[in-house]
Amino acid sequence: MRILFIGDVVGAPGRQMVHTYLKSLKQKFRPTFTVINGENAAHGRGITEKIYKEFLDDGAQMVTLGNHAWDNRDIFSFIDEAKWLVRPANLPEGTPGVGYRIMKVNEYKIAVINLLGRTFMNPADCPFHAVDQLLVHIQKETPIIFVDMHAETTSEKQAMGWYLDGRVTAVVGTHTHVQTADERILPEGTAYLTDVGMTGPRDGILGMDKKAVLHKFLTTLPARFEVAEGRAQLNGVVIDFDDKTGKAKKVMRIQVDDDHPLL
Amino acid sequence: MRILFIGDVVGAPGRQMVHTYLKSLKQKFRPTFTVINGENAAHGRGITEKIYKEFLDDGAQMVTLGNHAWDNRDIFSFIDEAKWLVRPANLPEGTPGVGYRIMKVNEYKIAVINLLGRTFMNPADCPFHAVDQLLVHIQKETPIIFVDMHAETTSEKQAMGWYLDGRVTAVVGTHTHVQTADERILPEGTAYLTDVGMTGPRDGILGMDKKAVLHKFLTTLPARFEVAEGRAQLNGVVIDFDDKTGKAKKVMRIQVDDDHPLL
Amino acid sequence: MRILFIGDVVGAPGRQMVHTYLKSLKQKFRPTFTVINGENAAHGRGITEKIYKEFLDDGAQMVTLGNHAWDNRDIFSFIDEAKWLVRPANLPEGTPGVGYRIMKVNEYKIAVINLLGRTFMNPADCPFHAVDQLLVHIQKETPIIFVDMHAETTSEKQAMGWYLDGRVTAVVGTHTHVQTADERILPEGTAYLTDVGMTGPRDGILGMDKKAVLHKFLTTLPARFEVAEGRAQLNGVVIDFDDKTGKAKKVMRIQVDDDHPLL
Amino acid sequence: MRILFIGDVVGAPGRQMVHTYLKSLKQKFRPTFTVINGENAAHGRGITEKIYKEFLDDGAQMVTLGNHAWDNRDIFSFIDEAKWLVRPANLPEGTPGVGYRIMKVNEYKIAVINLLGRTFMNPADCPFHAVDQLLVHIQKETPIIFVDMHAETTSEKQAMGWYLDGRVTAVVGTHTHVQTADERILPEGTAYLTDVGMTGPRDGILGMDKKAVLHKFLTTLPARFEVAEGRAQLNGVVIDFDDKTGKAKKVMRIQVDDDHPLL
Ligand SMILES: [Fe+2]
Ligand SMILES: [Fe+2]
Ligand SMILES: [Fe+2]
Ligand SMILES: [Fe+2]
Ligand SMILES: [Fe+2]
Ligand SMILES: [Fe+2]
Ligand SMILES: [Fe+2]
Ligand SMILES: [Fe+2]
Repeated sequence: MRILFIGDVVGAPGRQMVHTYLKSLKQKFRPTFTVINGENAAHGRGITEKIYKEFLDDGAQMVTLGNHAWDNRDIFSFIDEAKWLVRPANLPEGTPGVGYRIMKVNEYKIAVINLLGRTFMNPADCPFHAVDQLLVHIQKETPIIFVDMHAETTSEKQAMGWYLDGRVTAVVGTHTHVQTADERILPEGTAYLTDVGMTGPRDGILGMDKKAVLHKFLTTLPARFEVAEGRAQLNGVVIDFDDKTGKAKKVMRIQVDDDHPLL
Repeated sequence: MRILFIGDVVGAPGRQMVHTYLKSLKQKFRPTFTVINGENAAHGRGITEKIYKEFLDDGAQMVTLGNHAWDNRDIFSFIDEAKWLVRPANLPEGTPGVGYRIMKVNEYKIAVINLLGRTFMNPADCPFHAVDQLLVHIQKETPIIFVDMHAETTSEKQAMGWYLDGRVTAVVGTHTHVQTADERILPEGTAYLTDVGMTGPRDGILGMDKKAVLHKFLTTLPARFEVAEGRAQLNGVVIDFDDKTGKAKKVMRIQVDDDHPLL
Repeated sequence: MRILFIGDVVGAPGRQMVHTYLKSLKQKFRPTFTVINGENAAHGRGITEKIYKEFLDDGAQMVTLGNHAWDNRDIFSFIDEAKWLVRPANLPEGTPGVGYRIMKVNEYKIAVINLLGRTFMNPADCPFHAVDQLLVHIQKETPIIFVDMHAETTSEKQAMGWYLDGRVTAVVGTHTHVQTADERILPEGTAYLTDVGMTGPRDGILGMDKKAVLHKFLTTLPARFEVAEGRAQLNGVVIDFDDKTGKAKKVMRIQVDDDHPLL
Repeated sequence: MRILFIGDVVGAPGRQMVHTYLKSLKQKFRPTFTVINGENAAHGRGITEKIYKEFLDDGAQMVTLGNHAWDNRDIFSFIDEAKWLVRPANLPEGTPGVGYRIMKVNEYKIAVINLLGRTFMNPADCPFHAVDQLLVHIQKETPIIFVDMHAETTSEKQAMGWYLDGRVTAVVGTHTHVQTADERILPEGTAYLTDVGMTGPRDGILGMDKKAVLHKFLTTLPARFEVAEGRAQLNGVVIDFDDKTGKAKKVMRIQVDDDHPLL
């Protein structure tokens, strides 16, 4: 089986890329299952019910989030009914939504977990202990487990990769919005990629208008960041794994943009 | 002309990779000029005079540093005499060493600048204003300018890329120790890569022994990090540019490891 | 001579305390000069022209700011005309406003400097080097120099106290909104207090409504902080100094609240 | 009953102050119970078994710690046998030592809890949820509960004060090494003080030699901090409470130094 994961979708330009390319990507790569990180889908900050449903309509089976999960207040009105939406698992008890979902696909079950890093991020529960607790339950259901590790630092992401090696199908990072080139299968069979990258404006800074971001760096004055305009990109990763064991067999990065047309 | 830049060399395993592969890399890619980031060359922390000279002997023309520049106290004894060593430029007046160097190569001059980011890093002077001031002088000498932007966040690195687009030959990031896959020529002719990656142990965490790093994440107790053992990797980037204008023409990432043998 | 300094005024409750008590405080303590930190005066975030003028009408001679200086956009419309408003000095060249002011009082001149710390705060220029540069100019004008050191950590504030000991009349900290009890005259004649405290709601958290702040700590979800309601407090400090040398002679903390009525 | 709490003892000068003054303080204030924060007792970093026992010999009944708990590796050899040593409670399961202790004093029981803040500190479990869990057990034993809230920011400490108001006898902060002047009894009967301050060198920076600290601020170069020499201070707080209900009745700060001799 094969999973396709698409990195942080930023604003309308990112959603448009999903809408335009997901069908062709699925025709080309034939994934069994598609996951989208949607934490920046609504104007760069959070997600709405409408956007979540568009992702499903466009062909995704699951949507993950991150530190921006709660930025658009619409989330609180629909997260508890959103069957295929996963927010970070290592948040306090009582947090709306859930930290993992399991979907039945043919005779198999696929689990998707979302975790939040802590280094240079807001306080959260320990993602390492949190995932240990989740795996107790999930591993009874299925060995096919996909982890979206939403974190700032490469060290915390690599640490999670090694920590879960052999216990999950894949650990793929999100949040930095830049795709890394370190895809590999770890020794015990877990696919790993530090960051899958970003789907959205190609000529901004992390997808946001570069003028405002540069203004902030140069002046240290407050600035309102808007999603950048102009051409966009799509970043993703495809992972092949064994249906029975959930072990990863192959990991391949995907970039779609002017320099990397989808053929 | 062509420049070869090799990312953060970590400890003895990283130095061994440079020693083993730099000659072959130069035969294969025929760079005019080779730069190595050596901030982690001495047991993962700083650099010594002996190591600096080994890098030159192995075929590098220039060595850059980063936030770990001062971790090995040997630096203070030789930095002022080290003609081809560049420490971050945006440090207070009076800091030992210099923030850029210009080397004559045939009839051309090549400038190398080292900058430090500030987001999630220790206080430093503004790298954007600092580079503006340096460029006033450097641009009188040469349009061939290579910038090693040593920073934690993708946003600060992208911001520097856009800020210097058209003013320098290349902005290449270091510090996160994971190579990114976003190499490109920006519209005004500056080559850009968010992070060139790391040269050192392949099965550690940022080159350090993973057991200690994982122990720290899991327990939050202090841990002494040592350079990892076992097989290693080399990460770099090659940039082609116009001799007269200094404008970049091509940027190509390099990885040498078990999965990517140097042919 | 004697200076009265009133700590971070938070919202309407804080402004009301100034309006109600400043006259009586001046009658009781007879300061030559009164300074108010107003960075939180407008609903807890920034300041407006109207509020700035109210402070002067209420009896202040000078108003200082801090990291919240720019939170209310009204600041940009009046800061360049506001003769007695001082924003942090260690900001990039081109920042609106000025980092110090000198006022003539009888035959004497009194300088007021505002500095920003960097530890656990946003990037800024080095406050130590910045104040050195300012003092070159200011010390030609007057030895009476009052420094509002707006910083998060006690270490950076103490460091500034020792650094300026003997060169300025007083170093008084702001920003943490809790008055410290370490007032003293340093050996070379500079009055020092780590934090002067806050003027505003007494039963909130740093002046903001405690429900929202606690909600954020408990859930890690975003929360909109509003200025707390209910009774308020005023925090300040009075410093006596020699008219000729500017050396501090006495430093005395002031608290006005239900437990510490102004008699 | 009355509790005496002495703030972060720094190095030999701090320990000497305890040795010299604790007996007189006990004669003067007659506390039922004395607690010392000892996280910096061994050369400014951590604590040893020898020092822990000296504190008990000098008259303390309990010793609390903080983020520096593990800095001296001796701790691991004795913490599990140290009956009256309390390390932060909100650390991962499996951490050596315990997060609270209950001591029998006459017919009463006194509980001491140590908590770690998270803002601008290393990752930890949520102190608010952690204390809730502890209180379930502790409140079955006794209503006399003393909380040492070891945290960087005034907001997290005030939040803890309000959160525990009415449920514990006192919330007293440590870690910033500067005594605050905001002691009060909160409406539901909990004594509160944002920071009790530091016991150690009076003319350093947080107790460390000011030259090295200033060198670091000015140059951003690494510096080895040593405990300052010269005269010292003692900072503490005395809290009176009802034996039966554990409700606080009075809170009084203590300073012993050249300017505040113990009479
Ligand atoms: Fe994102
Ligand atoms: Fe994110
Ligand atoms: Fe590095
Ligand atoms: Fe680095
Ligand atoms: Fe403030
Ligand atoms: Fe502030
Ligand atoms: Fe301490
Ligand atoms: Fe501490």
